[in-house]
Formats: sequence, structure tokens, C-alpha cells
Amino acid sequence: MASSDTSRIQCPILRDKCMTAEQAAALIPNGARVGMSGFTGAGYPKAIPPALAARIETLHAAGEPFSIGLWTGASTAPELDGALAKVGGVNMRMPYQSDPTCRAQINAGKMQYVDAHLSHVAPYVWFGFWGRLDVAVIEVAGVLPDGRLIPSSSVGNNKTWLDQADKIILEVNAWQPEGLNGMHDIYYGTDLPPNRVPIPLVKPGDRIGEPYLRCDPAKVVAVVPTHSPDRNSVFNPPDDTSQRIAGHIIEFLQHEVRHGRLPPTLLPLQSGVGNIANAVLAGLDAGPFQHLTAYTEVLQDGMLDMLRSGTLDSASATALSLSPAATEEFTRNIGFYRDRIVLRPQEISNHPELIRRLGLISMNGMIEADIYGNVNSTHVMGSSIMNGIGGSGDYARNAYLSIFMTPSLAKGGSISCIVPMASHVDHTEHDVQILVTEQGLADLRGLSPSQRSEVVIERCAHPDFRPALRDYVARARASGCGLHTPHLLGEALSWHERYLRTGSMRA
Amino acid sequence: MASSDTSRIQCPILRDKCMTAEQAAALIPNGARVGMSGFTGAGYPKAIPPALAARIETLHAAGEPFSIGLWTGASTAPELDGALAKVGGVNMRMPYQSDPTCRAQINAGKMQYVDAHLSHVAPYVWFGFWGRLDVAVIEVAGVLPDGRLIPSSSVGNNKTWLDQADKIILEVNAWQPEGLNGMHDIYYGTDLPPNRVPIPLVKPGDRIGEPYLRCDPAKVVAVVPTHSPDRNSVFNPPDDTSQRIAGHIIEFLQHEVRHGRLPPTLLPLQSGVGNIANAVLAGLDAGPFQHLTAYTEVLQDGMLDMLRSGTLDSASATALSLSPAATEEFTRNIGFYRDRIVLRPQEISNHPELIRRLGLISMNGMIEADIYGNVNSTHVMGSSIMNGIGGSGDYARNAYLSIFMTPSLAKGGSISCIVPMASHVDHTEHDVQILVTEQGLADLRGLSPSQRSEVVIERCAHPDFRPALRDYVARARASGCGLHTPHLLGEALSWHERYLRTGSMRA
Repeated sequence: MASSDTSRIQCPILRDKCMTAEQAAALIPNGARVGMSGFTGAGYPKAIPPALAARIETLHAAGEPFSIGLWTGASTAPELDGALAKVGGVNMRMPYQSDPTCRAQINAGKMQYVDAHLSHVAPYVWFGFWGRLDVAVIEVAGVLPDGRLIPSSSVGNNKTWLDQADKIILEVNAWQPEGLNGMHDIYYGTDLPPNRVPIPLVKPGDRIGEPYLRCDPAKVVAVVPTHSPDRNSVFNPPDDTSQRIAGHIIEFLQHEVRHGRLPPTLLPLQSGVGNIANAVLAGLDAGPFQHLTAYTEVLQDGMLDMLRSGTLDSASATALSLSPAATEEFTRNIGFYRDRIVLRPQEISNHPELIRRLGLISMNGMIEADIYGNVNSTHVMGSSIMNGIGGSGDYARNAYLSIFMTPSLAKGGSISCIVPMASHVDHTEHDVQILVTEQGLADLRGLSPSQRSEVVIERCAHPDFRPALRDYVARARASGCGLHTPHLLGEALSWHERYLRTGSMRA
Repeated sequence: MASSDTSRIQCPILRDKCMTAEQAAALIPNGARVGMSGFTGAGYPKAIPPALAARIETLHAAGEPFSIGLWTGASTAPELDGALAKVGGVNMRMPYQSDPTCRAQINAGKMQYVDAHLSHVAPYVWFGFWGRLDVAVIEVAGVLPDGRLIPSSSVGNNKTWLDQADKIILEVNAWQPEGLNGMHDIYYGTDLPPNRVPIPLVKPGDRIGEPYLRCDPAKVVAVVPTHSPDRNSVFNPPDDTSQRIAGHIIEFLQHEVRHGRLPPTLLPLQSGVGNIANAVLAGLDAGPFQHLTAYTEVLQDGMLDMLRSGTLDSASATALSLSPAATEEFTRNIGFYRDRIVLRPQEISNHPELIRRLGLISMNGMIEADIYGNVNSTHVMGSSIMNGIGGSGDYARNAYLSIFMTPSLAKGGSISCIVPMASHVDHTEHDVQILVTEQGLADLRGLSPSQRSEVVIERCAHPDFRPALRDYVARARASGCGLHTPHLLGEALSWHERYLRTGSMRA
């Protein structure tokens, strides 16, 4: 974890501020709003959060209150979200999490959580909408002699935290490959309205900024050298369900190319994170397309494979999220990847202006969709948070094609992921073009809600649940309610109720 | 209606194509997709739709099928939407309507309706997502000698319809003031991805295009001279409820200025259409702010007043929507207004890139909001369409401040506009910052769902419904469901059910 290797800290002023993680954690006051680095298990601080958690535990044991507001890029890792949640050290969490302990705290009402579009986060902090940021705790890969910072394996909101925080604490992680130097592109052209100007990015691989983070050395109160790996989760090999979802998407993209609605090299890909997304990427890598590009949040194994094989020419993201094996490959051939990968702040990777301009093919997972095309990405049975909306709204709303995908069943078949009415809506009927399950693909473009319900049921729902869905629609249509989006309000959420009561949506 | 005055048609080629509305209507084939002009009751064709409706009525009486797909900018008028709906002449309507007959047809399942974000419409048509456009029927204010068109009182999707349609039919309306010439700014810099570039607009009043619509004379199959007024609805004078809503918003904006979160001249205003919006504009006009700007869809009476009084320096929109009295004032002093008003295509007035860049203060009406901040803008009791989402999603998602407003009660007090769960979601919890009723203003920025429910109930709900809402939250929290967004799924929509059953949400 912590390390005595200060060779990466080339700035004398900052090297003089080296201390232990415990000493640094002691500089964070009770009640502080703390902006930490970290996006999808990459580039998060690894020593200070556990040290802070230990301090909090001691204080709580002594009857002293202590908690912080915790802001990050997106999800982090057990030693950050998990450790702080476990000791009840977080009073407010923003803008995304995927940690089991953290989730349990939120759903127990013990931690408040603001689940926000990732493109909104930096601007809202600049605007002062979420209050002052007291402390930034940022992992970097190195410090240049003049104090500029070599970013780590994610950029996330680090530029904003460094700019906005009153005090800065740095972790300099010698585990991160030195070859990351030069891979980043930090755009400093943002401003507050009414002084904003166009962002001059027109291709996914464009570099419009600087490779380093600016940092006012006077604000730095502590530097902690570390040597510790990122979370680096392993992906499951694609299963049959994932492969069938991938197959439907690839067939659809080929169909669109044949009809002239997509160029042969497609348009820049955006892919959510997870096993299904990885299967889709594997399918694309084995498929007929060449010279693709990606403009996405996170580069996971699948995209690395596509870069190596030459299917993908270039990729832009705000974070890496690699398995240990992929990390090894990445580090070994980092020169190759540095020529093809650009890591950016998340306000740029997720910016509506750029997503709309580039015309992305956006592919994201979901929890459930309803028969009319509303998508729930965040809530289990309407009340409990799963992870958060992340960037899916930024992408789906502004993409050229917005695709949402899920297996048709969950929990061993007791849950239908196609329901009469979504128990929570994150992506409205106006934002969802394509739904895909292993059963098939529903192309909702240009369809009214009633027409959508037919293709969603017949193409995407599991055959076990189709009769009940057809019956719901038929009875809703006959009920005398309005026929634009016919619903039986007394029954619309009954599948979820039944699951809560019996453990299954099956009647 | 139709007229023999061809003096506004200065292009000989097009003048030779003059004919009656009946002759022009006969050129529209059964099953055609027809893109008509029109946005909020301004600039819609006035002679051909009634002629087409008469033709359809005759055909139907003779047992012959005839219907079209009808695409517009947004809402039109009784002589367009109403006339065609009345004879069952529309099989598919996009992307917005507000006509009673049209609405009744949709809710009776006799007309399919795709309710889309207004910024999505032109791009989706360029992409071919909604099929080929067969005919464009466009009202203009005049034709130049070289065939370019002087746009009418709305721009909407006219540029796209003229570009994309196989055949073009023009109505040249001599009723429209000649002084409209020069007020428009038609941007021809759009392209398909991957060839898109930044849109070079940085201030609401910027002119980045041309004052005229391009039109290929070879595609024009008919020109119909007309002399006929726009719909020109009268607004109600602000009532007490609207004035109280306006007062809360103005107080909030002053508060934001005091805290340095808004400049003293605010940021560009976007305002939805209607009596409450007009009351807010009247309140702003009488209020402390000066040198404001507007970047919005529609200019209604209130903004005209603000321009005249000097409160507003400039305004950008895609359409006018004026009362007869305001129309007179506008026409009389059109030189003054032409210096201060820019009318643009709706893909520019509603473009996410520009809304985000300019940092709008977005104020839109709604049907209902739930206690967690989800907003329903389109559906009455979950099933029946009211009008459509229009541009509210384009603005709310990308604005600096997204404000939604409604009286706390509807239908004489039998409906609470603050409900446990919205019966349809158009703006998710991630997109809604400020809710306002005559009761007060709820600032939801930085609040978790549970925290939001408290301020929404205490600030916005009508006192008659507060006890039941508090009771719902208390029982949901105690029910064992997840405490992030606690819901009782069996009861969440029961208020709407009760209304459908008893005519009142009151227990």
C-alpha cells in the first residue's frame, strides 16, 4: 500500500510534503466534502481511504461523530467505498457507486446518495450547486518537476477536484505504469456560462488539451507515495446468453450498414461495463467490421483486444477497467496503446455536445425495460438502488443509436426483465431506440407506444412471460383507459409486488 | 384563405406553378409521409390542409382509404391538425400536437403518435430512421427572384422538410408581415456523423447562417398564394396562482444572484408556452432584472413585452406565438423587433450542444411531479396523451437550471399535481432541479431521493394533500423496502386509480 519510494515525485516542494497515509488522513476534518479520484475501479486512492476509515472507527468507538461527503468520478473499490461505508463514515455519496457495502448502507437509509448523470457532476460543482469542495484526494502516476501531475489510470473528475478543493492530498502510485505519461488529454478550455465556447473535438482520437493535470502546489497539504494495484476485476467468459445478445446487435449493425444508415466503419462505439458489454465487444472483434473507433467512458478488456487485433483504430475514454491479464498486456505494450488511447476528464468523455456531434453507437445494460420502451437502469423493484445511472443517460439521449441490453430473465428465471411498467424510469420512451435480449432485438424507432409494446413483447420478452404481457396489454386496451399508452394502474407494478411477496414474478 | 395575390412570388419558375389549394392537395398521394410547417400555431399551411381534409372526406365517403403520416415542427392549428384528424386522415403523427381532435383520435387508438424530443426530429429524418419524406407543405412569407424562400412566423423543421422531401408544395402567405424578411437565421452547417463540426453560436443573438431557406425549384410541384392569419391565441391575464408561482421563481433567481451562482443579468431564459409561463415573464418584466436574453423555442406575448420594455436585450426562438393584440404590436414595430429577435430552425433552438454551452435558465410546465422529483409532462393518469414532451427534455437535461412548475391542484382541487409516484416519467430524477407550485419552491439540487421527498411535500404539495403524502412516505419507509427511494408498489399509483374510479384523488 503505502511506500517509501518517492522517485516519482520530482517536484521538490511536493516531495517535502510527503507523509504517511495516517498523517494525511488526519488532515481531513469531520463534515468535509471530499472529492476523491477513481472511476470504475481505476485510479482511486488506495492508502488514505483505509487510513481514514481506521481513524473514523476509532473516533466512533470513542463516541465522536465523524463523517464526510464523498464525491468521486464513478465507482471505486472495496478499499475506498467499501472501507468508508463499513465504518459509517460517509454521510452523502455522489455521483455513482457499485460497492456492496455502500449499496447496503444506502438502501438501509444510513447513507444519502445523489445518483447523477456523470456529465453533470463537474459543471454542478463549478456552479456551486453542491456546495464547496473542502478536500481533494487524488491518485496520480507521478509529479513533474514543476508540480504538474501525470494522471493515473483514470481521469474522472480529478481536474475539477484539483481546481475546486481548498486542500489537496496526493497519492503517487508507483505501481501505475510510467508509460501512462502522455496518454491523457486534459482539456482546460471549459468555462462558466455565459463565457463558454465550442469544444474543438471532432474525432474520437483528437487531442485538444494537455497531457498533465495542473495543480497549485500551495494547496497541496500532503503527498503519500504508494505502490498498489487497481481493483482489476476478472470478466466472466461470454456465456450463451451474452453471445446471443451480441449476435443480435451485430446483425442489426450489419443491417443498418446495408441500408445506408451507418457507414461500413460504423460510428464511434460507446459501451457500458460488464460481462454482456464485454461479450458484445468480443463479438464485434470477431465480426465483419474494421477500422472502428470508440468514444466511451471505460476501456475494458474487450476494447483492448480490439485495439490489438486492429479492429479498433483508436479509443477515447476517461478510465481503464482491465482484468489482471489485460493489465499485464497493457503495461507490456503500453507504447502501442498510448498511440491509440486517449484518456480524458469525464466532463469531456460524457459531454452531450461531443456525443451528439460524434454520433455514437451507444450500448448500455439495464435492469428492466417496460413494454412501452421505458428503461430502468438503477432501481431494484422501484425502491432499492443498484449502482446508479452513470453515463448511460449522457450517451443514450445524445447518441446516434441508443441500444439497451439485458438477458430477458434474472434471478434464475424468477424475474422478467421486460415488465408492464418499469418500477423506476431512468431513460424515458423518448430516449430508447433499440432493446435487446437474448430473445431478439426490438427496433423502436418511429413506433408509437402501442406499436412498441408489440415488438418489445414478441422480440425481447422471454417466452414464459409473453402470454402474461400480451394479456396485460389486451386488458389495458379494453379497459377504457387512454389508448396511447394503455395501462392498468392497479396492476402495472403488480409483477414487482409479487416478486417482493413471493420471490418470483411468475403467477 | 387562398388568394390570387402572387406579388410575393418573385421567382418566375415558381410563379408558374401557382394553383389552387384543391389542386395542390390532389398532388399528395395516399400513404404519403408529409412534412408540414408549423410550430405553436405559427407558420403552418392554412389552405392545403383543409382542402386535403375535404378530399379525404370525399374519398372515405366513397369507401376509398386515404391517410397520411403527418410530421410538423410542433403544434399547429384547428385548420391543420384538427381538420385532418376530424376526417381520420392521419395514420401517424410526429413529433408534437396539442389539438383536441387530434388528441382524442390518439387516445382512441385511431391515430398513432410518436412523441419525440424536438431536437431529435430533424436528425432522425436525416438519418433515415423514420423513413423517406414524400412531400413537404411549407408556408413561407415570400419567394425571392432566385427561388430562395423568406420564412414565415415559424421555422421549425422547414429546412429539413425542404431538403429531404421528394416533392415540395409552398403556401405563400401575404398576411405574414413583409418585415419578417431578415429576422431568420437558417444554419446550413449541419452534417451527418462522422462529419459534424462545432456549431459556432456562443450568444443567443448570434447569426450563424442565412436569412433564407434554400429550395430546389425542380422539386416544387405547387405554389398556393394565401392571405390568412396565424392561430394567435389569447392568453389569460395572470391569475393569483400564476403570480405566486412567478413570485417564487423571481425570489429564487434573486437568491441565486446574491449567492454568486447567477450573474446579475442572469443567463439566457427558456420559457415554455402557456399562461403560467406568460405570468412568469410578466413577473420578470416587472422585477429587478435588466439586460436579460432569451434562447427559447417560442416567443409569446410576455417576451415581446420584455423586449419592448428593455428588460430583454435579445431573444432567439424557432417560432412566434402571439395574441392578436401582440401580433398587431409586433407588425407595427417590426423593425425594432427584427433587431432583437432571431428565428432559427428547431434543431438549433433546441440543440443540446447550444443549450449546454449557453447555460440556460429553463422553465417548463408539467402535469405532475412525484415526491422524488420525477416529472410527467405528457400523460394524464398514465395512459392518455395530453400534448407531448416538446422541447422540455432538450432544455431540462442541458440547462444551467431546470425548473418545472405547475399549480399544486388541478380539476378544481380533485387532482394533486404532487403524487407518490408519477404515472408517466418524461423527466427523471436526474434531470429535475427545481419544482415550483403556488405553495412554494423546492430546490432539489444535491439532495438524495429521501431528502427530496421532504422538501417536495412541504414546499410544493397543497396542504390538503400533505398529510396523505407524509403518511405514504412514512409507511413506505417502514415497509422494509429499500430506503433509497422508498415506495409501496401496491399503492404508488393508487391516487391516479382513485381519480379514474371516483373523479377525485381525495380519499
